[in-house]
Amino acid sequence: MYKVGIVGDGYTAADLLRLLAGHDEAEAVCIFSTENIGRRIDEVYPHLMGFSDLKCQAGDWNLIKNECDAVFLALPHGLSVPIAMELLPAGVRCVDLGADFRLKDALLYESYYEITHEAPHMLQEAVFGLPEIYREKISKSRLVANPGCFPTGAILPLAPLLEAGMVESQGIIVDSKTGVSGAGKTPKASSHFCGVNEGIRAYGVGNHRHGPEIAQELSFAAGEKVKMTFTPHLVPMNRGILTTIYARLRSGADALQVRKVLENKYRDEYFVRVLPQGVMPYTKWVNGSNFIDIGIHCDEESGMVILVSALDNLVKGASGQAIQNLNIMLGMEENKGLKIAGMYP
Amino acid sequence: MYKVGIVGDGYTAADLLRLLAGHDEAEAVCIFSTENIGRRIDEVYPHLMGFSDLKCQAGDWNLIKNECDAVFLALPHGLSVPIAMELLPAGVRCVDLGADFRLKDALLYESYYEITHEAPHMLQEAVFGLPEIYREKISKSRLVANPGCFPTGAILPLAPLLEAGMVESQGIIVDSKTGVSGAGKTPKASSHFCGVNEGIRAYGVGNHRHGPEIAQELSFAAGEKVKMTFTPHLVPMNRGILTTIYARLRSGADALQVRKVLENKYRDEYFVRVLPQGVMPYTKWVNGSNFIDIGIHCDEESGMVILVSALDNLVKGASGQAIQNLNIMLGMEENKGLKIAGMYP
Amino acid sequence: MYKVGIVGDGYTAADLLRLLAGHDEAEAVCIFSTENIGRRIDEVYPHLMGFSDLKCQAGDWNLIKNECDAVFLALPHGLSVPIAMELLPAGVRCVDLGADFRLKDALLYESYYEITHEAPHMLQEAVFGLPEIYREKISKSRLVANPGCFPTGAILPLAPLLEAGMVESQGIIVDSKTGVSGAGKTPKASSHFCGVNEGIRAYGVGNHRHGPEIAQELSFAAGEKVKMTFTPHLVPMNRGILTTIYARLRSGADALQVRKVLENKYRDEYFVRVLPQGVMPYTKWVNGSNFIDIGIHCDEESGMVILVSALDNLVKGASGQAIQNLNIMLGMEENKGLKIAGMYP
Amino acid sequence: MYKVGIVGDGYTAADLLRLLAGHDEAEAVCIFSTENIGRRIDEVYPHLMGFSDLKCQAGDWNLIKNECDAVFLALPHGLSVPIAMELLPAGVRCVDLGADFRLKDALLYESYYEITHEAPHMLQEAVFGLPEIYREKISKSRLVANPGCFPTGAILPLAPLLEAGMVESQGIIVDSKTGVSGAGKTPKASSHFCGVNEGIRAYGVGNHRHGPEIAQELSFAAGEKVKMTFTPHLVPMNRGILTTIYARLRSGADALQVRKVLENKYRDEYFVRVLPQGVMPYTKWVNGSNFIDIGIHCDEESGMVILVSALDNLVKGASGQAIQNLNIMLGMEENKGLKIAGMYP
Repeated sequence: MYKVGIVGDGYTAADLLRLLAGHDEAEAVCIFSTENIGRRIDEVYPHLMGFSDLKCQAGDWNLIKNECDAVFLALPHGLSVPIAMELLPAGVRCVDLGADFRLKDALLYESYYEITHEAPHMLQEAVFGLPEIYREKISKSRLVANPGCFPTGAILPLAPLLEAGMVESQGIIVDSKTGVSGAGKTPKASSHFCGVNEGIRAYGVGNHRHGPEIAQELSFAAGEKVKMTFTPHLVPMNRGILTTIYARLRSGADALQVRKVLENKYRDEYFVRVLPQGVMPYTKWVNGSNFIDIGIHCDEESGMVILVSALDNLVKGASGQAIQNLNIMLGMEENKGLKIAGMYP
Repeated sequence: MYKVGIVGDGYTAADLLRLLAGHDEAEAVCIFSTENIGRRIDEVYPHLMGFSDLKCQAGDWNLIKNECDAVFLALPHGLSVPIAMELLPAGVRCVDLGADFRLKDALLYESYYEITHEAPHMLQEAVFGLPEIYREKISKSRLVANPGCFPTGAILPLAPLLEAGMVESQGIIVDSKTGVSGAGKTPKASSHFCGVNEGIRAYGVGNHRHGPEIAQELSFAAGEKVKMTFTPHLVPMNRGILTTIYARLRSGADALQVRKVLENKYRDEYFVRVLPQGVMPYTKWVNGSNFIDIGIHCDEESGMVILVSALDNLVKGASGQAIQNLNIMLGMEENKGLKIAGMYP
Repeated sequence: MYKVGIVGDGYTAADLLRLLAGHDEAEAVCIFSTENIGRRIDEVYPHLMGFSDLKCQAGDWNLIKNECDAVFLALPHGLSVPIAMELLPAGVRCVDLGADFRLKDALLYESYYEITHEAPHMLQEAVFGLPEIYREKISKSRLVANPGCFPTGAILPLAPLLEAGMVESQGIIVDSKTGVSGAGKTPKASSHFCGVNEGIRAYGVGNHRHGPEIAQELSFAAGEKVKMTFTPHLVPMNRGILTTIYARLRSGADALQVRKVLENKYRDEYFVRVLPQGVMPYTKWVNGSNFIDIGIHCDEESGMVILVSALDNLVKGASGQAIQNLNIMLGMEENKGLKIAGMYP
Repeated sequence: MYKVGIVGDGYTAADLLRLLAGHDEAEAVCIFSTENIGRRIDEVYPHLMGFSDLKCQAGDWNLIKNECDAVFLALPHGLSVPIAMELLPAGVRCVDLGADFRLKDALLYESYYEITHEAPHMLQEAVFGLPEIYREKISKSRLVANPGCFPTGAILPLAPLLEAGMVESQGIIVDSKTGVSGAGKTPKASSHFCGVNEGIRAYGVGNHRHGPEIAQELSFAAGEKVKMTFTPHLVPMNRGILTTIYARLRSGADALQVRKVLENKYRDEYFVRVLPQGVMPYTKWVNGSNFIDIGIHCDEESGMVILVSALDNLVKGASGQAIQNLNIMLGMEENKGLKIAGMYP
């Protein structure tokens, strides 16, 4: 039984615990908090009653070094760097659910996150934790940067098409719609029930932090700098991200080829379900699960490819993917603890 | 045109402005804030763009004395007392939407609100602002204590039956279900979208502050101390309170009499709609309006009377009723500015 | 007092009645139904109790001819044509809230709606009911085709820019997000609470009926055939449409010019609010009102213009706009009955 | 591996499949439908993609007899009787999720369900499927009547107190609040998104079909006829039932005793969590799981006991409890396939 620590006590930490409760080769042995030190985690999150008797404690990196094979860092940006610097040399594998190791370009990080990156040299070692793309590297890495919730939904449908030269690398539109849990657990005006319920709005238009992360990975796939416009929207629901992508079919490519590229790429992937022609994904079908569903519509007349993906932002968009990465890093079956169907309705 | 001031900038203040925008004999001339001083109110609440160009200012009681005929105090408890003490002698009529003047018993106030009441002598002057019960007194008063949102929904169905001796005054159950706007605009864990959406719970069981307010008014109606159990529940919706009341039919009384008492009491009341036999109220039917709907079910076999009422907690439960009180105090038509239908769906 | 009839008893009919209740120069004098014949409309829609005592009746065009100055046709497509053919010659002005007279091209109508158009000759007479664009024509017309809910949100932001040559006429993306009331009142799997709540999905991808309507009007504005991709999404909320539009800045144009074009166009329009730089619209700010809010973001680097609009699909997207059209047709003040603020929260 | 059949394809059938997918000793081998014959179940319910490749077929009782150890009947009332009559003699154990075998009194059944009961003699054999109360009998039975969703939430908190003589058996109030999935999958006006969202209402006041079921079991517990008033309410959420119960403390009983009775009764029950003093249950804590949480508040002054329970209506209120019953009937571990935490948020 592998032993893992969790640093942080927000929604992603809670979902790590929910999923690890059904994992038979890894268990959470400690959880670190700042606000809830001394409280049982099932008092903070009573849905975990009977599934975890851990008590929140103040950060104690020696404890992790002594007891844990791996650690999940579920923290606001900036906080993971020093912890990873401390734990990696001690042989503790790190999966960072935050943003600190996702961007390869420290300057870009600093301009978007408005803090100095304390360890830019670690950015090259860190592997971007999208198993369907970087599985090989993840299996050999000590430090995985779990992708943001939006990037997963944008990259998985687009990267294979860019790599195969099926769509133009310029003028791509990524229009995402997310549930509110992505905004985190801390009460804010923007997550107040009455401020969110019965409304939809765009936010971070033109400057959302997940923009450069998506662009980085799409550019790697395309082998050239990709120009892309990313607009997230807030939807009155707890979980789920739907991403609607518009790209122009490259001349010579057609609808069948587009479908074939994606089906071939994901045929053997447990967590990616490419939907049949005419079926578009729905966030409700992946609710609570680690799946990402992808729908494809090509309009050959206008030359537009519309890709739609759906995932649960706390699972494939965060904690589920983090466990998937852990499984790969530690050599377990990749879907351990994650073979659960979505919950409907 | 009467000139009124608004002290506070929470949800009830916003709904006062929405409703006053359609009032042709009273207008809001100033609004006082602590957090938004200097900002236009339609920047704080953009739904008011085009309807109010007021700018939030720091409290200035001289301004009110000089410019306002009346003032709405939409503040947390404790803050209205000193303001009312200042304004009343200057001839400014006060409608307090907070809790400071509702309870006649200062000690009870102090035990529930955990602060000292600074002006217990004013409690007798203050009129409990339920026009359907205290219209006469309101019309002559300078200081009206606008009822809490829950009490309005409990008192209007029950008071006439207690007064007429139709139901037992002991063992009454008031089970209320409220939308989230009743919790106010300040972000809290308990009003976080993800903490509320897709769930229902009871809160304040056995000790909610509206309990003694309901008990006070029911006791006045019954002419004896009423024993009542009040349990509020939080429902994932913005607006609305449904109150389900259980009372025992007094021996000798029957279903027809119960209905007749309520129908007679409210026949000429614009804002109270007693629904026909077999129809139960729905919060959606009063959404955004100043109506309260009442449904009646008597089970003569078990001797139980079930009363259900529905209102919009921000309108008949707060701002609408406050304007209704203002209209009465200043001698205007009682439903000025309030002749609006609910919005459905 | 102008007398109007309403044909249909769905959500748009209900909102016509809600709004007409506050209109002091026009009143609804009859309502026609198929499913609710003989029932009072306030029994079908209890939120209208006290605001309408009309009884639903079977279609009776003579009654309309004798009693009504104008009629609102709020019917499924195909049903308005014969009624309009009957009423127009009798001098009854018609505002059709359905799709029968929106497309100028009868063949396009027939291919999208899969029925034969019974009166293609009327398509030229019918005026597309967007007052901000066709006010002049509407004022002289007998037959107005009230736009679909999505088209209003797409055309108002885009048309002036296309007309002014600010954006490319090809490759425009219109990504819309709508509340569920747009799907109508009839229970369907797609509007079942549990099928909609806590999820978001795209639908009608590549073939939604509002696509050609948008394209038609954008092409008129551009003076050339516009190529556009329209994707609607269903959001778990009752009312509201948010439309996110992506267009390429034409070379030579810049952000300031774009803003100026829209601000100039809509400066004197009561119902169009162009938001200041940095502010993006929110459906909650227009909830229940006839406003459309427009936000503008230009990314000069990527050459992309992002326009976001918000409206209430049942008001500016249907019944409110219909009343606005009626006001113009009959020479009343254009905002009669529509000077109401949105309801928030 | 036990083989089970599922008759019906509504929400409870879907949740049976979701839960059985994680059950390692029982598997669903066939599913019967009327509306979806010939369609794969994961096309009807795409959240099951990868978890079931069953195809819906027309009812075929021979197939069940030949292949199944047990069957779940997830059907509207009236339809289970003939199927059970056919399957039981062939040795197939039946868990009926419908209402046909719950009431011991056929006349009561007939008066509430308005059909003739075709096999009243089977009512005595059928065991009411509340394992925490009838475990022993269930383990020996062939036919289990899975309780209604509301009864589970009312009986588990109340029965031990009635049995122990802690509360009066007369005048009990059961005020329940349910999510919409309890109304089933078939689109109806009462489950239309826009008819439900942003509202709460009581329904079936005084005559809901679960009333006599609750009364029957409470009377068994009390050893005398219990008089109880049951009022369900519809809450805008997918899943969950909160039940607020009001009962009078019997003279001589006190708060501590009440708590002790419930804690003792449920100490060793995996699925019942009696919450500590001061904590009240929340439907979100049991979302998707088979737990029922119970909170207790005694007001000794007024002599009122308030019990609040929370469960997921599709799990402990239907499919989860059905699997729990199956596990007991077939001698498996009782919580097989059900050791899953609630999903939060």
